[in-house]
Amino acid sequence: MTGKKHVYFFGGGEAEGNAGMKDILGGKGANLAEMTNLAIPVPPGFTISTDVCTYYDENNGNYPEGLEETVRENIQKIENMMGKRFGDMEAPLLVSVRSGARISMPGMMDTVLNLGLNDDTIKGVVEQSQNERFAYDSYRRFIQMYGDVVMGLKPESQGEEDPFELILDKKKRMKGVKFDTDLDVDDLKELVLEFKTLIKERLGKVFPDDPWEQLWGAIGAVFTSWENQRAITYRKLHNIPDHWGTAINVQTMVFGNMGDDSATGVAFTRDPSTGEKIFYGEFLVNAQGEDVVAGTRTPQPLNKGHNTDTTLPSLEEVMPKTYGELVELYKRLEEHYRDMQDIEFTVERGRLWMLQTRNGKRTSRASIKIAVDMVEEGLIDVKTAILRIDANQLDQLLHPNIDPTAKKNVIARGLPASPGAAVGEVVFTADEAVSLAADGKKVILVRIETSPEDIHGMHASQGILTARGGMTSHAAVVGRGMGKCCVVGCGEIKIDYREELFTVGDITVKKGDTITLDGGMGEVIQGKVPTINPELSGDFEKIMTWVDEYKKLKVRANADTPKDARVARSFGAEGIGLCRTEHMFFEESRIRAVREMILSIDKEGRRKALEKILPMQKEDFKEIFKEMDGFPVTIRLLDPPLHEFLPQKDSDIEELASEMSKPFEMIKEKVESLKEFNPMLGHRGCRLGITYPEIYEMQVRAIMEAACELAREGHKVIPEIMIPLVFMVSELKLLKEHICKVCSEVQDRFKISLEYTIGTMIELPRAAITADKIAAEAEFFSFGTNDLTQTVYGLSRDDSGNFLPYYIEKKLIEKDPFVVLDREGVGELIRMGVQKGREVRPEIKLGLCGEHGGEPSSVEFCHNLGLHYVSCSPYRVPIARLAAAQAALGEKKPD
Amino acid sequence: MTGKKHVYFFGGGEAEGNAGMKDILGGKGANLAEMTNLAIPVPPGFTISTDVCTYYDENNGNYPEGLEETVRENIQKIENMMGKRFGDMEAPLLVSVRSGARISMPGMMDTVLNLGLNDDTIKGVVEQSQNERFAYDSYRRFIQMYGDVVMGLKPESQGEEDPFELILDKKKRMKGVKFDTDLDVDDLKELVLEFKTLIKERLGKVFPDDPWEQLWGAIGAVFTSWENQRAITYRKLHNIPDHWGTAINVQTMVFGNMGDDSATGVAFTRDPSTGEKIFYGEFLVNAQGEDVVAGTRTPQPLNKGHNTDTTLPSLEEVMPKTYGELVELYKRLEEHYRDMQDIEFTVERGRLWMLQTRNGKRTSRASIKIAVDMVEEGLIDVKTAILRIDANQLDQLLHPNIDPTAKKNVIARGLPASPGAAVGEVVFTADEAVSLAADGKKVILVRIETSPEDIHGMHASQGILTARGGMTSHAAVVGRGMGKCCVVGCGEIKIDYREELFTVGDITVKKGDTITLDGGMGEVIQGKVPTINPELSGDFEKIMTWVDEYKKLKVRANADTPKDARVARSFGAEGIGLCRTEHMFFEESRIRAVREMILSIDKEGRRKALEKILPMQKEDFKEIFKEMDGFPVTIRLLDPPLHEFLPQKDSDIEELASEMSKPFEMIKEKVESLKEFNPMLGHRGCRLGITYPEIYEMQVRAIMEAACELAREGHKVIPEIMIPLVFMVSELKLLKEHICKVCSEVQDRFKISLEYTIGTMIELPRAAITADKIAAEAEFFSFGTNDLTQTVYGLSRDDSGNFLPYYIEKKLIEKDPFVVLDREGVGELIRMGVQKGREVRPEIKLGLCGEHGGEPSSVEFCHNLGLHYVSCSPYRVPIARLAAAQAALGEKKPD
Repeated sequence: MTGKKHVYFFGGGEAEGNAGMKDILGGKGANLAEMTNLAIPVPPGFTISTDVCTYYDENNGNYPEGLEETVRENIQKIENMMGKRFGDMEAPLLVSVRSGARISMPGMMDTVLNLGLNDDTIKGVVEQSQNERFAYDSYRRFIQMYGDVVMGLKPESQGEEDPFELILDKKKRMKGVKFDTDLDVDDLKELVLEFKTLIKERLGKVFPDDPWEQLWGAIGAVFTSWENQRAITYRKLHNIPDHWGTAINVQTMVFGNMGDDSATGVAFTRDPSTGEKIFYGEFLVNAQGEDVVAGTRTPQPLNKGHNTDTTLPSLEEVMPKTYGELVELYKRLEEHYRDMQDIEFTVERGRLWMLQTRNGKRTSRASIKIAVDMVEEGLIDVKTAILRIDANQLDQLLHPNIDPTAKKNVIARGLPASPGAAVGEVVFTADEAVSLAADGKKVILVRIETSPEDIHGMHASQGILTARGGMTSHAAVVGRGMGKCCVVGCGEIKIDYREELFTVGDITVKKGDTITLDGGMGEVIQGKVPTINPELSGDFEKIMTWVDEYKKLKVRANADTPKDARVARSFGAEGIGLCRTEHMFFEESRIRAVREMILSIDKEGRRKALEKILPMQKEDFKEIFKEMDGFPVTIRLLDPPLHEFLPQKDSDIEELASEMSKPFEMIKEKVESLKEFNPMLGHRGCRLGITYPEIYEMQVRAIMEAACELAREGHKVIPEIMIPLVFMVSELKLLKEHICKVCSEVQDRFKISLEYTIGTMIELPRAAITADKIAAEAEFFSFGTNDLTQTVYGLSRDDSGNFLPYYIEKKLIEKDPFVVLDREGVGELIRMGVQKGREVRPEIKLGLCGEHGGEPSSVEFCHNLGLHYVSCSPYRVPIARLAAAQAALGEKKPD
Repeated sequence: MTGKKHVYFFGGGEAEGNAGMKDILGGKGANLAEMTNLAIPVPPGFTISTDVCTYYDENNGNYPEGLEETVRENIQKIENMMGKRFGDMEAPLLVSVRSGARISMPGMMDTVLNLGLNDDTIKGVVEQSQNERFAYDSYRRFIQMYGDVVMGLKPESQGEEDPFELILDKKKRMKGVKFDTDLDVDDLKELVLEFKTLIKERLGKVFPDDPWEQLWGAIGAVFTSWENQRAITYRKLHNIPDHWGTAINVQTMVFGNMGDDSATGVAFTRDPSTGEKIFYGEFLVNAQGEDVVAGTRTPQPLNKGHNTDTTLPSLEEVMPKTYGELVELYKRLEEHYRDMQDIEFTVERGRLWMLQTRNGKRTSRASIKIAVDMVEEGLIDVKTAILRIDANQLDQLLHPNIDPTAKKNVIARGLPASPGAAVGEVVFTADEAVSLAADGKKVILVRIETSPEDIHGMHASQGILTARGGMTSHAAVVGRGMGKCCVVGCGEIKIDYREELFTVGDITVKKGDTITLDGGMGEVIQGKVPTINPELSGDFEKIMTWVDEYKKLKVRANADTPKDARVARSFGAEGIGLCRTEHMFFEESRIRAVREMILSIDKEGRRKALEKILPMQKEDFKEIFKEMDGFPVTIRLLDPPLHEFLPQKDSDIEELASEMSKPFEMIKEKVESLKEFNPMLGHRGCRLGITYPEIYEMQVRAIMEAACELAREGHKVIPEIMIPLVFMVSELKLLKEHICKVCSEVQDRFKISLEYTIGTMIELPRAAITADKIAAEAEFFSFGTNDLTQTVYGLSRDDSGNFLPYYIEKKLIEKDPFVVLDREGVGELIRMGVQKGREVRPEIKLGLCGEHGGEPSSVEFCHNLGLHYVSCSPYRVPIARLAAAQAALGEKKPD
């Protein structure tokens, strides 16, 4: 570490760093330097680099050689610039010590203000400020903050209040006053003593008077706070690597609490909620920064703009000159950074100081408006606008949401499986959901877990709540596919199917009671909460038009019904990448024929039952093809194991038996014989198509007849027939022969020649490994990353809930591989599959149709591999489009 | 095809082919050529090459251009050599037309003899042979054979007898005689007419008189027979590629049935059953070849050697001169081929003709004796001896077998999961097996399928029979591991647990009834059949000593108990490659503590229960280490999901509840909560070790304490601790830290420093793909090809029984990938894992411990990859050793 620069000075219009140095100066430090260079008034100071944090962590809290001396030199520079001295009795320099990581982690790490105060320097502060009350208030705040943050004087037990606050409260009670501001100088002086005594008694240590000791204590505390539990959790949640470390900014204190000509405030250069171009913010007169955030005093608006409380006087009115300066500065900053800024400022005795600027966080809606406006203002170009929008965040926009102003009684929390808000009466069975919905009622389906048998009920419901299952459980996957609000894995609720109720602690929710779900937050809320519908503004359309100009990947939708197909088109899907035919099998009118087929003892019986399904399935295909006129539709032949279509419980089997006039034992025996140890690895996919060729034959006939009938009507139909779960080319070869035969027969019958392609899912490791062989028979590959992830990891997504959350918590695994595509493992097989497939068939069409197709980082991966398309749930199509454009623009969204 | 040579002549001491040309001449043709070149008397003829068969199959039964003319020329050559003419009335040439593939497929394809006979040429035969009866008998046989084989006159329905035989029987009845030989010339003449009439009536075609038409009919029939069902099935069973095709040999007929100076016979140059060096065979006077095989007359021995019926006169006695010639010839042949020969000969009027020689099939026992003897005789070298033994066949030698001379009533057939024979009383539960065995009874455990709960019962039984499951089902894998006779997937038996019986058709077998199992054949036999124990002769030891000189791979055993370890050592295992610790958990004295552990609500409770298991597990390890003194022992930490240790049925749960004095509901709830959709992909392997660190901690402590205690006693203990189911290096890293900590603690306590290594299974695709990362932490890799095959194929071996047999039958898949390692898919990942692992840690120890470790072709693959060892069930250790040596010798066993 020797020889490396560890400390960067800023002040007096010149800084050693700049905005490009966030890695080593942190966001705050880099921007302080940048502002300084822009001649923006910034209190002088210096930044200790993130390298030092890493060194500190790795060397048991020791610093690199020479750091102490360099800090001393930099303090001297400040002293010279400000004409003050650290520890001086007459003109004492006070500083703040703040953390500042590469990415802002608001409130996560510690800060110490007013450092440098002691019984000597306090005199100078009194003298300089001519305000004894301010001085002693600062002193007692400093002791309180330092005692907590650096010396570690915390409440001793969970329930105990902060011991400093206890003393403060006692003092106020004794004085009979309500607010801190009502305490006088003597009270504050007593508090200083009492706080120091508290520290001595509780910690057995004396509060340090030496400012240097104070400084090094604070620096150590801030570095240590990088490793506190809150910070670690925050980093995990926001995917911030541990090794980045934090920088520390040591900066001259300026005071917004020096009297009525002083103030402090925060502002956004545009409205962070709507994106409107108004200067938006709050301030307090005679206050320090923390007062604005703390909420003990109501902050005043900066101006009389929108969305601000106009009953309080604004900065514009109270300090018109300062306001004018601030406006000039914020414009300069926005123009310089070419992005909406989140700024902090302090006015000390009429002099405006900027304490921070950074790109402001914003809602999805605001991000779109700001991006479009800035393009129109000429501030940024279209590419930058596209890169500015967080694709992950876009989801907010596309679903109804809970009115943020509404009161809500959250009774339980689960996993936010599928966003949006839903209100309805609780039902516990899919059948009940269907029958109540048919009566025009809105219902929420509550199940321990869902299975394919519940699909009709899920369709009929407003939202789905399950007690078990992870982010990729059946309920979650199907819910997202339907764009239906869904909360899963809500272990707190105990469902009693027999009594038709669930409980959470003392609360009992019965069938028919109304609840509200927030699928974006994973919240279960008692009663009805108002929701607001999304508005897809013209700005959204504009961004999406731009996006389509840049993206290379096509975006298709996973859609199983004509309705899904319609939604998908409205969100800009360029075809269907996955039409799962089994969902069509579950509709009430069909499941009977499907069961008849399964229960048939011979091929003849199966054929007879299949004949009943054929016209219905054909109608579905016709409707879907119509919606997708001119766009390709990839239809996957039957995939799930047959037992999914049969009832499992004895009572249901009995019902079916009497319905079908078959003996209970016969059906029971069939159900038993279809049971599998590992159904995911069992008799499903093309294995069904091979052992029961008549099933696929019927499906292909339905597809081809639908296509021919529509073609005759002048529609452009582009069917792509997809075989699931292939592990070896021989399977595909055999099925392809069958399929081609049926297609020829139908086309001959219709006297129509229609182009269609036959391809395969690549969803088993062996298929990817032998993709060269398979490509000889396949006209397209669609990577099925759900199953591929399961097999590559040897991990059943339905069962992973018992340990995967623990893995993520313990950082054994960075991200849930069912959510974000695992590039190292699964991705490597995809890469292999792509390469081998292209070797044999260079023009092979390549797509991805797992859940990952709507996840931005996975979309980027697909773009990089040169796939032709991704396919995702209709509601995620815009996200995928945006992510595809961002990937094409060759870089990630800047921080 | 033009220009290519299709026909190869042999005869008169000179041939166009030789023994090296089996690919195009077939085995028989190549050897006829070779014998001819050796000046062995072979009736002249020619071979039509296998290319023609392939051409014929691919071109709808057409022949390559020019073939007809070439055949005509070759017939002329024979005519000239024999002084006979095809179709001639005076000296007619008769020929045989026989198939002959690259590898012998005995009885699978068709043959036509006496071709060339018609109402004209018969006169010449009568004249030449001076034996009208012989001539007409030949004629009627020819029509019968030709009518069947070439013209396709077969029984019309399954039950009908052969229509020619019906006529023959009728004739005999009318004449009041018993044997064909009792019919006189007139009878035979009538039969000729009646046969021709039958053909005319049944087929509407006239029997062809033209010898050329006869010849081409026969050639076409033989080529067509390559594609008959029997032949296809045979090829599938013996892994013979379809495209090889068969050659056809057209050869001058010689007659062993020309009177008492004629004879025909077959012989082996050594005893094919024992390998003893005696000339061994049978013959019949005045007979054709088929009579020897048909069993209608009892053949006579060649000499007064061993194992032959000495009540009949031998060839040595009957035809001493011919016998002398035959002895001279067989010695010449064996010396030339340097292998035991299987020969066919015919004596026509005192003249000896050799019709065939080929390497003789032999039992495993014989192959070993012959190989060793031939080395000692200086006929072959040691390498050749090693390559001569079929490693797959060796299994026969290592288990008791059913006495081949015993009568047996086979009542059902299942899959031959684990070889050997077993006799015992039928029991239906593992507990009963244990308690009867404790009373000294021999039992056969009969289950619908087995689970880990049954292991103690499997141990206690002589053999295991299941109604469900494939070659790699639980019963099969565990059975093989224990070296215990096992028949699985015997769908014919219907088990009724309640009534304690099973039925097969009309037969009912009750609890307590005795049955016999033949695990090598998959047979279930009623009653007790005598068995014979294997004798591992000195020759076996000798071969194994030679094998060890050449093999590069080490061979270890999968052994879970001290007994297994002992057996493994006796079979030459060089350590243990897989010691599964879970089997130790199932023993009656332990399962209780294991269940207590699982049912504990907190870590403390689990620790307490684990403390009870620790001393028992330690004792096991001590015993195993002792058996393996000086050899490495790889111990796999707990792998199966916890639910396997809990009862599943309500009645069993109730029992457990009362035993443990816990409420039924509590245990039931735990059982329910542990249920998984896909347990194979669930909460098992290192996922358990990570979520319940106390389990692995206990196991590691048991291992290390055992090792230290033994080391103190002077034993050399080499423990290798293996983590299962790793998909990411982070898992291994975390567990390794825990393990090292425990190991250090124990070693410090014992004041002993002991070398041990920590490694991982590579049994998930992701582990293989990221083997470079994993190798950074792993000191060894053990490829777990059972699970790797399951995940690479997305195929649960327990569920594959519903479709995998169909796949194999339909040739979608060549070999069961759970039996023979799939080089293309699974093998590719292993190759990748090996390469990536070595990149990072060149000295990494590499092994394989799946079922494949004892399968010769898979062993060869491991050798080729340069792995350090394979590990397999103790009983397959000699097979693996032999296969390893054969692989090292760089070539497959010659045909």
